[in-house]
Amino acid sequence: MRKSVSKRDLTADAGVELDLRVRYAETDRMGVVYYANYFVWFEMGRAEYCRRLGFRYLELEELGYRLVVAEAHCTYHKPARYDDVVTVHTFLHKLARRLITFGYRVVRKGPTETLVEGETTHLCLDAAGKIKSIPEPFHRYLGQNPSRHDSHA
Amino acid sequence: MRKSVSKRDLTADAGVELDLRVRYAETDRMGVVYYANYFVWFEMGRAEYCRRLGFRYLELEELGYRLVVAEAHCTYHKPARYDDVVTVHTFLHKLARRLITFGYRVVRKGPTETLVEGETTHLCLDAAGKIKSIPEPFHRYLGQNPSRHDSHA
Amino acid sequence: MRKSVSKRDLTADAGVELDLRVRYAETDRMGVVYYANYFVWFEMGRAEYCRRLGFRYLELEELGYRLVVAEAHCTYHKPARYDDVVTVHTFLHKLARRLITFGYRVVRKGPTETLVEGETTHLCLDAAGKIKSIPEPFHRYLGQNPSRHDSHA
Amino acid sequence: MRKSVSKRDLTADAGVELDLRVRYAETDRMGVVYYANYFVWFEMGRAEYCRRLGFRYLELEELGYRLVVAEAHCTYHKPARYDDVVTVHTFLHKLARRLITFGYRVVRKGPTETLVEGETTHLCLDAAGKIKSIPEPFHRYLGQNPSRHDSHA
Repeated sequence: MRKSVSKRDLTADAGVELDLRVRYAETDRMGVVYYANYFVWFEMGRAEYCRRLGFRYLELEELGYRLVVAEAHCTYHKPARYDDVVTVHTFLHKLARRLITFGYRVVRKGPTETLVEGETTHLCLDAAGKIKSIPEPFHRYLGQNPSRHDSHA
Repeated sequence: MRKSVSKRDLTADAGVELDLRVRYAETDRMGVVYYANYFVWFEMGRAEYCRRLGFRYLELEELGYRLVVAEAHCTYHKPARYDDVVTVHTFLHKLARRLITFGYRVVRKGPTETLVEGETTHLCLDAAGKIKSIPEPFHRYLGQNPSRHDSHA
Repeated sequence: MRKSVSKRDLTADAGVELDLRVRYAETDRMGVVYYANYFVWFEMGRAEYCRRLGFRYLELEELGYRLVVAEAHCTYHKPARYDDVVTVHTFLHKLARRLITFGYRVVRKGPTETLVEGETTHLCLDAAGKIKSIPEPFHRYLGQNPSRHDSHA
Repeated sequence: MRKSVSKRDLTADAGVELDLRVRYAETDRMGVVYYANYFVWFEMGRAEYCRRLGFRYLELEELGYRLVVAEAHCTYHKPARYDDVVTVHTFLHKLARRLITFGYRVVRKGPTETLVEGETTHLCLDAAGKIKSIPEPFHRYLGQNPSRHDSHA
């Protein structure tokens, strides 16, 4: 497991939650969700995180910026299966001027079980592909505590 | 099965062939290739068709044109399975100024079996999203017989 | 466009509705949803159709039956884009003993626009891969009118 | 970057190579390969690794065993783009009785550029889901040096 510098203690935090139902297309011949697909769920989790803080990730791209993935990691505990409803919990692990790290925990609903945990680190690039500071007001938004915000799916 | 106007008789024609090996990610919990993934193979087949005729589909996009899918169809006979090597045969079914229809037949190698057959119809759009004639020299290339061309993977 | 025998008039019917938000992973370099991914949404639509009628498609598989796709078709009108919320409307187009045809219409929320329309036909197979009648009580459920049922996501 | 115990020095080793061409379906609206798809390529790389050593991963599954992913990691340097031909280099990083770690490096052909590097760790499970030793002769095969074997695609 890899260390990550957390700006605040998140152990008691449920993060921003997103529910989704496992698609047939996401399973493989082993009968479980194919391992790469959890990273798709992580992406949905961080988009939801932004939305909860008051902006759409799309707005950042419309300004000519992109958050490109620099590193991605996942630890697999138990598999998700077709038709399961799972919750993706997304946390802010680190926020710097030009870099942001999200953490994720995916749990199955019902008798709650942690299925996978992951982390992704992103750099902010401008349209020319240069590393830039995350522009305002997005950087300020990202530094807020999502639990203080009202949810809107 | 749907009628399509063919510019020439293609029944004896093997079309342009592309071999590929079935990926684990392409299977589903039924143990076979998920039905939507054959359309991904069709896309690879038509890209190979263009390549055989002397151009890359990418060049068309670099000029500001796109071939957008207007219609797609697939008939499923037998499933492809993990690690199978299959051949995608791609045919030109129809070529008009602003529209092109490709046909596909996917067969398993070894004791040859037809797995699926399909068809996709594409419109040519410019950067502004207007329907346009397929630009030269691409339209002329597409009207050629690929079996007269040398292959280059 | 292909004819399909409808058991009842569905023109005024909204079918069974399922909302979903477009994922980044579902887009392609053209900036729109990749054409094969609409078939994934169709699968979610028919699973929701079953759920609304009182059973999970999974239960059918747990009894050793499968509904395999025999034919799939999609007509593309306008593209869905990242972060759009779309509604998949699913209809029963035909129900026979061993065969079922679903129809689909995907619309964008907001100023409602039809994006794509499609149809899939499925055969019922047993564990040995033989074509069988859709087992009871599933066949009976499928013949019911979903608008008479209460929704449960 | 994470440490991994290597059984032998692999720095000068090209590993087992697999070439593939980037599919349109693998790109996203940023115009590059979606970050989760590199894990699909890793899976193809390790299947090729097994093949080079004289067995198909499928044979292991046919005996009732599975190599399930316990951990996956990827570091992204530069993006792959549509129609690029890339080479996936796969290495054995660690081989224990019940666990195997593969390393990957994906490079673009032409002026060679490293695009991504990754690592996946797998546990061997039997049909009942219990952790087991990797069965013979597969464990013995995996311990061999692939560069001593003849290639067969």
